[in-house]
Amino acid sequence: MHEEAIDPAVTLRRVRERTPLIHNITNLVAMGSMANILLATGASPAMAHAREEASELTVLAAALTINIGTPSPHWVMAMKEAAGTASERALPWVLDPVAVGATAYRHLTAEALLEHRPDVIRGNASEILALSGIALHSGRGVDSTDSTRHAEEAARRLAEKSHSVVAVTGSTDFVTDGERGIWVHGGHPLMPCISTLGCGLTGVVAAFVAADREAATGDADPLLATASALAYYATAGEQAATNASGPGSFFVAFLDALYGLQTPSLQGRCSTAPD
Amino acid sequence: MHEEAIDPAVTLRRVRERTPLIHNITNLVAMGSMANILLATGASPAMAHAREEASELTVLAAALTINIGTPSPHWVMAMKEAAGTASERALPWVLDPVAVGATAYRHLTAEALLEHRPDVIRGNASEILALSGIALHSGRGVDSTDSTRHAEEAARRLAEKSHSVVAVTGSTDFVTDGERGIWVHGGHPLMPCISTLGCGLTGVVAAFVAADREAATGDADPLLATASALAYYATAGEQAATNASGPGSFFVAFLDALYGLQTPSLQGRCSTAPD
Amino acid sequence: MHEEAIDPAVTLRRVRERTPLIHNITNLVAMGSMANILLATGASPAMAHAREEASELTVLAAALTINIGTPSPHWVMAMKEAAGTASERALPWVLDPVAVGATAYRHLTAEALLEHRPDVIRGNASEILALSGIALHSGRGVDSTDSTRHAEEAARRLAEKSHSVVAVTGSTDFVTDGERGIWVHGGHPLMPCISTLGCGLTGVVAAFVAADREAATGDADPLLATASALAYYATAGEQAATNASGPGSFFVAFLDALYGLQTPSLQGRCSTAPD
Repeated sequence: MHEEAIDPAVTLRRVRERTPLIHNITNLVAMGSMANILLATGASPAMAHAREEASELTVLAAALTINIGTPSPHWVMAMKEAAGTASERALPWVLDPVAVGATAYRHLTAEALLEHRPDVIRGNASEILALSGIALHSGRGVDSTDSTRHAEEAARRLAEKSHSVVAVTGSTDFVTDGERGIWVHGGHPLMPCISTLGCGLTGVVAAFVAADREAATGDADPLLATASALAYYATAGEQAATNASGPGSFFVAFLDALYGLQTPSLQGRCSTAPD
Repeated sequence: MHEEAIDPAVTLRRVRERTPLIHNITNLVAMGSMANILLATGASPAMAHAREEASELTVLAAALTINIGTPSPHWVMAMKEAAGTASERALPWVLDPVAVGATAYRHLTAEALLEHRPDVIRGNASEILALSGIALHSGRGVDSTDSTRHAEEAARRLAEKSHSVVAVTGSTDFVTDGERGIWVHGGHPLMPCISTLGCGLTGVVAAFVAADREAATGDADPLLATASALAYYATAGEQAATNASGPGSFFVAFLDALYGLQTPSLQGRCSTAPD
Repeated sequence: MHEEAIDPAVTLRRVRERTPLIHNITNLVAMGSMANILLATGASPAMAHAREEASELTVLAAALTINIGTPSPHWVMAMKEAAGTASERALPWVLDPVAVGATAYRHLTAEALLEHRPDVIRGNASEILALSGIALHSGRGVDSTDSTRHAEEAARRLAEKSHSVVAVTGSTDFVTDGERGIWVHGGHPLMPCISTLGCGLTGVVAAFVAADREAATGDADPLLATASALAYYATAGEQAATNASGPGSFFVAFLDALYGLQTPSLQGRCSTAPD
């Protein structure tokens, strides 16, 4: 793990130059905020979920995200088709297993999606624990009741088993491809007080991974691209907090920060240990 | 009716200590704002609507809300199952009969839901009038064309008939269990200029009723808990208005106010008469 | 084309006096922001999409908008029924053909809706080009990759063929009924950085066309009403930009500006040539 190999500012610049089209089959709560977060970052969001067009849209995109926050049968069919299309075409895709431990329906949905080998899985500690099978049904609804640190081993095993990069996000973030592991520090305590910031981060991860792959000449690295996205998000969160007096003004300042931020850095923010 | 028995600050503190999980089957417009309003209040929102998991999620929650603002067949089936589960398990649930007077479909949906005996019904004057059968089809769409005062009798009768607490909200609010009645004054004229603030209030009512029930040693009182939620909301609205120059900045300031408010009070805000 | 015939302030005042009920079958991303944009403008929004009530709600409304941004079978059936009802009853309705060039499903949906003769079609240049058949499949997702100027001819032909007013919006806007053509200048470069501002504009166009028709004594002119709505939106955008440091604060200021603006003007903003 060479820290100097990571420069979030380079990947962010690539996102803004290429404005990658990110196709999102996301939950109904996150629709608007995720679109705005992707636009502020510099990517081009498309949200659509019908089975009648899911694969066709995926083919047009630079990356796909799938979020199971508000699943229902028609949507789940479209998720599977889009994930299948992405997988066949080696298009990067990111899975966001919202509250996967809460119901059998979510568990089955996530299991089916894992078969299409997501490039990245991003969740909170409870979700990653549930998904890894270590702590099935440990999650209580949407909010995490576990810490990132507690999920490190689960994340490593899930990454090995699924051949995905796994990102556990929370007050500290951990990213792993099963072998390498990066801790990303930062962010702000107000962030969990705003709904769907995690869902939006999944989109930003997809944009970074897509831009990294498009720009790379053989050396694309989704682990580093994911860590870069997390560092960018954490930096914007810290910047937003300086202009916020609560969750309402925080989200406004956060969109402004994502938009204005030029040179996020992993210096002092990244380590190979949790503290 | 003893005013001194009501202290919104106590119930608010209980919400924040317990962060009750509120399961919401709500309309598509309110999804994001309602989640953020619940988070700012201190509760933990879960929005999900599939029949495949509705009852399972309801069982995990401290309270359920059902809002018929954007009904469709799959959703209505899930609403009925979730309401049935809540009712069987004596889990508090709140009905928000959006625009119930506007179409036959909404009327039928609300009627079916009433059979599962909501603990609280919260609507504007037109909705409560329509629901009580006094003024069927009196509502024009979503906005109220009637005043709270005009709906007092309808609210009392509806409360008696349905064994629910009924809250009529508007420029003045009225809450009744059929026998007792409380008027809550306050709020701000900008509030109806922001979409889904009423839907968000339904969530806050559920959070207050849930926290009151969990904390109570035999003396839970959904009427007082509902009045407390309305007082908290009205106080936050007044506070927000001091930082607002229109509906955009009002909503930002309102989330900040919900988040920061520590000691809402019913002193001078509550009475047994409409003025 | 008499410029002096257009006074956006007059139509805006009519919107606020009449608070026309606008029934919107819109996409899932735009739900909340469009409702807030309509409320800030002074109209009364209703969002609902079930086939079970679509026609019934349309009959109650002063205008209907249909947006195909997140289509699915049940919704598309409701769109067709609502459009059919509007057309039969000569109720004004506005079509927003989001990303119509991106998938076959959208193309088929838009074609079916065109049969019900929308009074106005509002889209970006790529969408209008795709819809006019001049540049089928030219659009890449939701964002426009073509300029308004490039779409002028397509807009004129589409307007002739469909007997609709066609509005192409972008950094400059063009409105035509096939014969007359008006260019509207203004707005701000931050506007495309906020999701669904175009969708919201479709609602404002519907509100202006509805208020113009209700107030008119035989001389309703949907072309001028549409141009007035665009001028109002552009003016609010410019005003918002003076208080914005990014897309988050821009949207807040934009809602405030829509709400507070009294006298938008086409003076110096309108011309019969693109520059």
